[in-house]
Amino acid sequence: MKVLGLIVEYNPFHNGHKYHIKQAKKIVNPDYTVAVMSGNFVQRGEPAIIDKYARTEIALQNGIDLLLELPFVYSIQDAGGFALGSIGTLHRSKVVTDIIFGSESGDIEIMNEIAHILLYQPGKFKKYIKYHLKEGHSYPNARKKALYDYFEKDDKKDIIYKIIEKSNDILGIEYLKNSKLYNTNIHLNCIKRKSADYNEENYTGEISSATAIRKIILDENYKLLEKTIPETSYQKILQEINDGKGPISYENMRDIILYKTRITPKEELIKIYGVKEGLEKRIIESAQRSSDLSELLANIKTKRFTYTRIKRTILNIIFDITDEKIQKFNEYGPQYIRVLGFNKKGKELLNQMKNKVKLPIITTPSRYIKILNEIRKKELSEDIIVHSDMFLEQFNYDIKASEIYSLLYQNKENSKKYNELTRQIIIK
Amino acid sequence: MKVLGLIVEYNPFHNGHKYHIKQAKKIVNPDYTVAVMSGNFVQRGEPAIIDKYARTEIALQNGIDLLLELPFVYSIQDAGGFALGSIGTLHRSKVVTDIIFGSESGDIEIMNEIAHILLYQPGKFKKYIKYHLKEGHSYPNARKKALYDYFEKDDKKDIIYKIIEKSNDILGIEYLKNSKLYNTNIHLNCIKRKSADYNEENYTGEISSATAIRKIILDENYKLLEKTIPETSYQKILQEINDGKGPISYENMRDIILYKTRITPKEELIKIYGVKEGLEKRIIESAQRSSDLSELLANIKTKRFTYTRIKRTILNIIFDITDEKIQKFNEYGPQYIRVLGFNKKGKELLNQMKNKVKLPIITTPSRYIKILNEIRKKELSEDIIVHSDMFLEQFNYDIKASEIYSLLYQNKENSKKYNELTRQIIIK
Repeated sequence: MKVLGLIVEYNPFHNGHKYHIKQAKKIVNPDYTVAVMSGNFVQRGEPAIIDKYARTEIALQNGIDLLLELPFVYSIQDAGGFALGSIGTLHRSKVVTDIIFGSESGDIEIMNEIAHILLYQPGKFKKYIKYHLKEGHSYPNARKKALYDYFEKDDKKDIIYKIIEKSNDILGIEYLKNSKLYNTNIHLNCIKRKSADYNEENYTGEISSATAIRKIILDENYKLLEKTIPETSYQKILQEINDGKGPISYENMRDIILYKTRITPKEELIKIYGVKEGLEKRIIESAQRSSDLSELLANIKTKRFTYTRIKRTILNIIFDITDEKIQKFNEYGPQYIRVLGFNKKGKELLNQMKNKVKLPIITTPSRYIKILNEIRKKELSEDIIVHSDMFLEQFNYDIKASEIYSLLYQNKENSKKYNELTRQIIIK
Repeated sequence: MKVLGLIVEYNPFHNGHKYHIKQAKKIVNPDYTVAVMSGNFVQRGEPAIIDKYARTEIALQNGIDLLLELPFVYSIQDAGGFALGSIGTLHRSKVVTDIIFGSESGDIEIMNEIAHILLYQPGKFKKYIKYHLKEGHSYPNARKKALYDYFEKDDKKDIIYKIIEKSNDILGIEYLKNSKLYNTNIHLNCIKRKSADYNEENYTGEISSATAIRKIILDENYKLLEKTIPETSYQKILQEINDGKGPISYENMRDIILYKTRITPKEELIKIYGVKEGLEKRIIESAQRSSDLSELLANIKTKRFTYTRIKRTILNIIFDITDEKIQKFNEYGPQYIRVLGFNKKGKELLNQMKNKVKLPIITTPSRYIKILNEIRKKELSEDIIVHSDMFLEQFNYDIKASEIYSLLYQNKENSKKYNELTRQIIIK
């Protein structure tokens, strides 16, 4: 049995995603296709433009049989943490045989080589990192510079240099690295992305970047929108807008983010994951002299911190995700499999999963206390990979994330209407 | 020299306030009039409808010579804490000779008698309190019930019963009690309020309640507004609206309050001042099923908690004011005199104050670090009433309060325009 696993955000689902699914299926010829997807907040450090239930529905209409949610605490981490959570979820699902990810280069060999170096850190590489850290660079930058040095005399130097600058390639390297870490049997491969650059901000035809498409939605340019996304995605997005839910933009978080960054004292701020190297000072000062979020980000921005890094760190502040907590989460990996939706085939796959999986499978969130008690019972006896405290913490973050996300719905009435604990799973 | 002291909120300044100033001046015949005023948040647990600078300007145009700010941490407490801060500020200003407050009954003798009992707690009274506490009542309720019991056989029973139910009389009793606590030489008296009931929600003619007037402003009923407030107040309010600052309603805090009440875990909530007797549970549950603030309040409300109590407690949550902190603040009283504005006479009075006062006088907030250092120097040598830690904490809350308040301005651009530390004092 072949089961294709995909790691996605679908923010929103567009023609590029459709193409990727088609190509991946061509390569793997799977019996089932499962995707692990970011929930209501995505790796850019932003709320998703429409909620995870709407995005699940669209995915189920476009070739995914089973949708799993990437726990919130991994979905808003950097490439390393995001990969740790998503590869962890697919690996621990026990049914996935193949993962295909999109990449700018499409060069799995070189990515594997880099992943190997990052994971096992040969002496020479370590030396380079040490050197660049001493020079005052942040760890991610020192690591990148060390890669440059390491491959300086390599024939494929030019290709490698290109790869370590591209966001999807970087993610891919982390997927490969983490699959080694989990010692998984899943076979990973990549396909060259047929799509606009991830960060391209403008419409580039039928295949446009998600960034461009979000902008089109916020501009209410529905004619153009129709050209860039499948019909099912288009219809669902319009329905979400009509229902007073979407579109949700980063700026919807204006009051929450400016309040929190203005009120949090420095000694609390520095405990938050990602707040280091003086970022706390920049955040505090910028919060006071910013009227909206684009201003806030521009004020915080320096060469040292990318916009995405800043936005992710701000979400950590909003949700009080400390360094200490992330250390633990990343040590233990995802503690449950949260199901967002499935079709008939997906249900079959889910039933097979149930017999194999050691993690609790959450299909009815309101029953988490029951699950928690079962974990606690097992904890007393068996060799375990799930820890009740960690389970509860990770799951609580998913709930909190949805409770805060629902405040952002366009029609404020919706903020009480959609309760995360009692909301129904999507069945197609 | 006679100096009249008033305790005010002016939210907003209306005809009833104007009448009160006139009557008070008739009684005292003062050389100067000083008022201690709530800042950007008021005792109802709400943001003021226009900011403290605008309200200062209006007050200076209507018979007040010098405006002092009641530190935020006292302005949003119950009658006891509010009185402790305001009487403390006027007492420690060292120049005030008379305080006149408005009251429903106008009966200073009985209020004094009650204040005496509350302060010195005769054995019989203590016994009643104990009894009602045992019966399961909250302390404020047990205290009120004990007063009922205590005066049960008194001739003036009917008058007394009436007094302890009226909000201004209750405040008056606390003023009297706290003036005994501070052992002040200031002479306190009251005048019968010529105005609508504090809680009357509707227009009642030229003298309408502040609640009714705020409603009129939010309804943009400017014709009616003109009848209820002096011309100067009217003009300033319109200017604030034109400048995109006012009017600020409680509902402007919707995102901030729903975010904070949804995100704060129970173990943090119970440390907050005012969160007890199960209020934490009601807040957590209500936050999840409320779309706006009126809904939130209605969901939290029980017989046990008044709306005002709930709103004050919510502000404590927003600003992380713990029980522990309030205990300290109430033990030490206000740690500085913050000047909001003055006219020519007020400046004279301020100069006299400077020679007498032991508290630091803050006229230029940006220089607080200099003041802090002076306090620290004195702390090492002298017998003191100001403590550097407490000074810094109280002052910081004033700054934070203004930083959050500025997020609520109608024109969001204003959120960065008005920096509390660099804003100029109002001079008329």
